[in-house]
Amino acid sequence: MNLTHIEHIGIAVRSIDEARKYYEDVLGLKCYSVEEVADQKVKTAFFKIGQTKIELLESTDPEGPIGKFIEKKGEGIHHIAFAVDGIENALQSLEKDGIRLIDQAPRRGAEGLDIAFLHPKSTFGVLTELCEDKNK
Amino acid sequence: MNLTHIEHIGIAVRSIDEARKYYEDVLGLKCYSVEEVADQKVKTAFFKIGQTKIELLESTDPEGPIGKFIEKKGEGIHHIAFAVDGIENALQSLEKDGIRLIDQAPRRGAEGLDIAFLHPKSTFGVLTELCEDKNK
Repeated sequence: MNLTHIEHIGIAVRSIDEARKYYEDVLGLKCYSVEEVADQKVKTAFFKIGQTKIELLESTDPEGPIGKFIEKKGEGIHHIAFAVDGIENALQSLEKDGIRLIDQAPRRGAEGLDIAFLHPKSTFGVLTELCEDKNK
Repeated sequence: MNLTHIEHIGIAVRSIDEARKYYEDVLGLKCYSVEEVADQKVKTAFFKIGQTKIELLESTDPEGPIGKFIEKKGEGIHHIAFAVDGIENALQSLEKDGIRLIDQAPRRGAEGLDIAFLHPKSTFGVLTELCEDKNK
Protein backbone atom coordinates (compact mmCIF):
# COMPACT_ATOMS: atom_id res chain seq x y z
CA MET A 1 0.00 0.00 0.00
CA ASN A 2 1.41 3.36 -0.95
CA LEU A 3 0.70 5.78 1.90
CA THR A 4 2.60 9.02 1.28
CA HIS A 5 1.84 11.33 4.22
CA ILE A 6 -0.71 12.35 6.83
CA GLU A 7 -3.28 14.17 4.68
CA HIS A 8 -5.18 15.58 7.65
CA ILE A 9 -6.14 15.20 11.28
CA GLY A 10 -9.86 15.58 11.98
CA ILE A 11 -10.77 17.30 15.23
CA ALA A 12 -14.32 17.50 16.57
CA VAL A 13 -15.22 20.88 18.09
CA ARG A 14 -18.45 22.35 19.40
CA SER A 15 -17.93 25.63 17.57
CA ILE A 16 -15.59 26.37 14.69
CA ASP A 17 -15.92 30.09 15.44
CA GLU A 18 -14.54 29.53 18.95
CA ALA A 19 -11.88 26.94 18.10
CA ARG A 20 -10.45 28.81 15.13
CA LYS A 21 -9.43 31.68 17.43
CA TYR A 22 -7.08 29.21 19.14
CA TYR A 23 -5.71 27.77 15.91
CA GLU A 24 -5.32 31.19 14.28
CA ASP A 25 -4.56 33.71 17.01
CA VAL A 26 -2.69 31.45 19.44
CA LEU A 27 -0.99 28.83 17.24
CA GLY A 28 -0.63 31.17 14.27
CA LEU A 29 -2.11 28.84 11.63
CA LYS A 30 -4.26 30.25 8.84
CA CYS A 31 -7.77 29.02 8.07
CA TYR A 32 -7.88 28.80 4.27
CA SER A 33 -11.30 27.21 3.77
CA VAL A 34 -14.65 26.69 5.48
CA GLU A 35 -16.95 24.20 3.82
CA GLU A 36 -20.17 22.38 4.70
CA VAL A 37 -20.35 18.66 3.86
CA ALA A 38 -24.10 18.14 3.93
CA ASP A 39 -24.18 14.34 3.78
CA GLN A 40 -21.83 14.13 6.77
CA LYS A 41 -23.82 16.78 8.68
CA VAL A 42 -20.71 18.80 9.40
CA LYS A 43 -19.17 22.16 8.79
CA THR A 44 -15.40 21.95 8.29
CA ALA A 45 -12.56 24.46 8.60
CA PHE A 46 -9.12 23.72 7.19
CA PHE A 47 -5.67 24.88 8.29
CA LYS A 48 -2.39 23.81 6.68
CA ILE A 49 0.77 22.94 8.57
CA GLY A 50 3.59 21.40 6.57
CA GLN A 51 2.24 18.49 4.50
CA THR A 52 -0.77 18.08 6.74
CA LYS A 53 -4.13 19.77 7.19
CA ILE A 54 -6.01 20.22 10.40
CA GLU A 55 -9.72 19.77 9.74
CA LEU A 56 -12.01 21.16 12.42
CA LEU A 57 -15.39 19.46 12.38
CA GLU A 58 -18.52 21.12 13.79
CA SER A 59 -21.76 19.18 13.75
CA THR A 60 -24.72 20.69 11.92
CA ASP A 61 -27.10 18.06 13.37
CA PRO A 62 -27.02 16.39 16.82
CA GLU A 63 -27.81 13.07 15.11
CA GLY A 64 -24.82 13.32 12.75
CA PRO A 65 -21.55 11.46 13.43
CA ILE A 66 -19.73 14.45 14.93
CA GLY A 67 -22.73 15.42 17.06
CA LYS A 68 -22.84 11.91 18.49
CA PHE A 69 -19.06 11.78 18.96
CA ILE A 70 -19.03 15.01 20.98
CA GLU A 71 -22.02 13.94 23.06
CA LYS A 72 -20.23 10.71 23.98
CA LYS A 73 -16.59 11.77 24.25
CA GLY A 74 -16.48 15.55 24.21
CA GLU A 75 -14.32 17.64 21.90
CA GLY A 76 -11.09 16.10 20.65
CA ILE A 77 -9.26 14.25 17.92
CA HIS A 78 -11.78 12.36 15.80
CA HIS A 79 -9.75 10.65 13.05
CA ILE A 80 -6.52 10.62 11.08
CA ALA A 81 -6.37 10.50 7.31
CA PHE A 82 -3.56 9.03 5.24
CA ALA A 83 -2.94 10.20 1.68
CA VAL A 84 -2.73 7.15 -0.57
CA ASP A 85 -1.89 6.56 -4.21
CA GLY A 86 -4.47 4.15 -5.61
CA ILE A 87 -7.33 4.16 -3.11
CA GLU A 88 -9.31 1.36 -4.82
CA ASN A 89 -6.35 -1.04 -4.70
CA ALA A 90 -5.67 -0.02 -1.10
CA LEU A 91 -9.24 -0.88 -0.06
CA GLN A 92 -9.02 -4.27 -1.78
CA SER A 93 -5.76 -5.00 -0.03
CA LEU A 94 -7.16 -3.95 3.35
CA GLU A 95 -10.21 -6.13 2.90
CA LYS A 96 -7.99 -9.11 2.06
CA ASP A 97 -6.08 -8.43 5.27
CA GLY A 98 -9.32 -8.64 7.25
CA ILE A 99 -9.69 -4.93 7.95
CA ARG A 100 -13.31 -3.84 8.42
CA LEU A 101 -14.19 -1.12 5.90
CA ILE A 102 -16.82 1.51 6.69
CA ASP A 103 -16.81 2.49 3.00
CA GLN A 104 -16.51 -0.43 0.59
CA ALA A 105 -15.71 1.99 -2.23
CA PRO A 106 -14.37 5.55 -2.27
CA ARG A 107 -16.85 8.40 -2.00
CA ARG A 108 -16.52 12.15 -2.42
CA GLY A 109 -15.34 14.00 0.71
CA ALA A 110 -14.39 17.56 1.64
CA GLU A 111 -12.11 19.38 -0.83
CA GLY A 112 -13.19 17.06 -3.66
CA LEU A 113 -11.03 14.15 -2.46
CA ASP A 114 -11.90 10.48 -2.90
CA ILE A 115 -12.15 9.13 0.65
CA ALA A 116 -12.96 5.95 2.54
CA PHE A 117 -13.04 5.16 6.25
CA LEU A 118 -11.74 2.08 8.07
CA HIS A 119 -13.49 0.90 11.22
CA PRO A 120 -11.62 1.61 14.48
CA LYS A 121 -12.37 -1.92 15.71
CA SER A 122 -9.90 -3.13 13.05
CA THR A 123 -7.31 -0.39 13.51
CA PHE A 124 -6.48 -0.49 17.21
CA GLY A 125 -9.03 2.18 18.14
CA VAL A 126 -8.10 4.78 15.51
CA LEU A 127 -10.85 5.91 13.14
CA THR A 128 -8.77 5.97 9.95
CA GLU A 129 -9.49 7.59 6.61
CA LEU A 130 -7.77 7.08 3.29
CA CYS A 131 -7.76 10.02 0.86
CA GLU A 132 -6.72 10.39 -2.74
CA ASP A 133 -6.66 13.61 -4.69
CA LYS A 134 -7.34 12.52 -8.26
CA ASN A 135 -7.32 16.11 -9.48
CA LYS A 136 -3.68 16.70 -8.65
CA MET B 1 4.73 31.03 16.99
CA ASN B 2 6.66 29.13 14.39
CA LEU B 3 5.02 25.72 14.02
CA THR B 4 6.52 23.93 11.01
CA HIS B 5 4.78 20.56 10.71
CA ILE B 6 3.10 17.73 12.60
CA GLU B 7 6.06 16.08 14.30
CA HIS B 8 4.12 13.03 15.41
CA ILE B 9 0.76 11.57 16.34
CA GLY B 10 0.74 9.61 19.61
CA ILE B 11 -1.50 6.53 19.67
CA ALA B 12 -2.19 4.52 22.83
CA VAL B 13 -2.22 0.75 22.28
CA ARG B 14 -2.46 -2.20 24.65
CA SER B 15 0.37 -4.05 22.92
CA ILE B 16 3.00 -2.68 20.56
CA ASP B 17 3.72 -6.23 19.38
CA GLU B 18 0.11 -6.61 18.23
CA ALA B 19 -0.40 -3.11 16.82
CA ARG B 20 2.84 -3.00 14.87
CA LYS B 21 1.65 -5.92 12.75
CA TYR B 22 -1.16 -3.66 11.50
CA TYR B 23 1.11 -0.67 10.89
CA GLU B 24 3.83 -2.75 9.23
CA ASP B 25 2.15 -5.67 7.48
CA VAL B 26 -1.17 -4.02 6.59
CA LEU B 27 -0.34 -0.34 6.11
CA GLY B 28 3.22 -1.00 4.95
CA LEU B 29 4.96 1.45 7.28
CA LYS B 30 8.33 0.58 8.77
CA CYS B 31 9.05 0.60 12.51
CA TYR B 32 12.46 2.22 12.83
CA SER B 33 12.77 2.49 16.60
CA VAL B 34 11.45 1.00 19.83
CA GLU B 35 12.34 2.90 22.98
CA GLU B 36 11.30 2.90 26.62
CA VAL B 37 10.70 6.29 28.26
CA ALA B 38 10.94 5.33 31.91
CA ASP B 39 9.70 8.56 33.47
CA GLN B 40 6.54 8.43 31.31
CA LYS B 41 6.04 4.72 32.08
CA VAL B 42 5.71 3.86 28.39
CA LYS B 43 7.32 1.86 25.67
CA THR B 44 7.21 3.61 22.31
CA ALA B 45 7.50 2.44 18.70
CA PHE B 46 8.07 4.89 15.86
CA PHE B 47 7.02 4.78 12.21
CA LYS B 48 7.69 7.52 9.66
CA ILE B 49 5.22 8.67 7.04
CA GLY B 50 6.13 11.81 5.11
CA GLN B 51 7.14 14.56 7.54
CA THR B 52 5.31 12.91 10.41
CA LYS B 53 5.95 10.06 12.82
CA ILE B 54 3.41 7.73 14.28
CA GLU B 55 4.33 6.99 17.89
CA LEU B 56 2.68 3.93 19.37
CA LEU B 57 2.53 4.12 23.17
CA GLU B 58 2.25 1.02 25.34
CA SER B 59 2.00 1.45 29.09
CA THR B 60 4.63 -0.19 31.28
CA ASP B 61 2.62 0.58 34.44
CA PRO B 62 -1.18 0.67 34.93
CA GLU B 63 -0.72 3.85 37.00
CA GLY B 64 1.13 5.67 34.21
CA PRO B 65 -0.60 8.18 31.91
CA ILE B 66 -1.11 5.72 29.03
CA GLY B 67 -2.32 2.97 31.35
CA LYS B 68 -4.92 5.34 32.77
CA PHE B 69 -5.89 6.65 29.34
CA ILE B 70 -6.55 3.15 28.00
CA GLU B 71 -8.47 2.14 31.10
CA LYS B 72 -10.74 5.18 30.72
CA LYS B 73 -11.07 5.52 26.94
CA GLY B 74 -9.65 2.39 25.35
CA GLU B 75 -7.04 2.32 22.62
CA GLY B 76 -6.88 5.31 20.28
CA ILE B 77 -5.29 8.61 19.39
CA HIS B 78 -3.71 10.10 22.50
CA HIS B 79 -2.07 13.36 21.39
CA ILE B 80 -0.71 15.37 18.50
CA ALA B 81 2.70 17.00 18.51
CA PHE B 82 3.70 20.08 16.57
CA ALA B 83 7.32 20.73 15.62
CA VAL B 84 8.23 24.25 16.69
CA ASP B 85 11.25 26.48 16.26
CA GLY B 86 11.97 28.10 19.63
CA ILE B 87 10.06 26.06 22.17
CA GLU B 88 10.85 28.36 25.13
CA ASN B 89 9.46 31.42 23.36
CA ALA B 90 6.44 29.41 22.22
CA LEU B 91 5.62 28.40 25.82
CA GLN B 92 5.93 32.01 26.99
CA SER B 93 3.62 33.16 24.23
CA LEU B 94 1.08 30.42 25.01
CA GLU B 95 1.08 31.31 28.69
CA LYS B 96 0.48 34.98 27.82
CA ASP B 97 -2.48 33.84 25.72
CA GLY B 98 -3.96 32.05 28.74
CA ILE B 99 -3.18 28.51 27.59
CA ARG B 100 -2.74 26.07 30.49
CA LEU B 101 0.70 24.43 30.30
CA ILE B 102 1.30 20.94 31.66
CA ASP B 103 5.05 21.57 31.37
CA GLN B 104 6.14 25.08 32.31
CA ALA B 105 9.52 24.45 30.71
CA PRO B 106 10.70 21.97 28.09
CA ARG B 107 11.84 18.54 29.23
CA ARG B 108 13.57 15.66 27.47
CA GLY B 109 11.22 13.31 25.56
CA ALA B 110 11.57 10.30 23.26
CA GLU B 111 14.22 10.58 20.53
CA GLY B 112 16.08 13.24 22.52
CA LEU B 113 13.65 16.04 21.63
CA ASP B 114 12.79 18.96 23.88
CA ILE B 115 9.08 18.62 24.55
CA ALA B 116 6.25 20.26 26.48
CA PHE B 117 2.55 19.43 26.75
CA LEU B 118 -0.43 21.80 26.73
CA HIS B 119 -3.54 20.91 28.71
CA PRO B 120 -6.51 19.73 26.62
CA LYS B 121 -8.85 21.96 28.66
CA SER B 122 -7.19 24.93 26.93
CA THR B 123 -6.93 23.39 23.48
CA PHE B 124 -10.48 22.31 22.65
CA GLY B 125 -9.99 18.78 23.91
CA VAL B 126 -6.75 17.97 22.12
CA LEU B 127 -3.79 16.92 24.27
CA THR B 128 -1.10 18.89 22.43
CA GLU B 129 2.66 18.57 22.54
CA LEU B 130 5.31 20.93 21.25
CA CYS B 131 8.64 19.41 20.14
CA GLU B 132 11.94 20.89 19.16
CA ASP B 133 14.93 18.97 17.90
CA LYS B 134 17.88 21.05 19.06
CA ASN B 135 20.35 18.52 17.67
CA LYS B 136 19.36 19.08 14.07
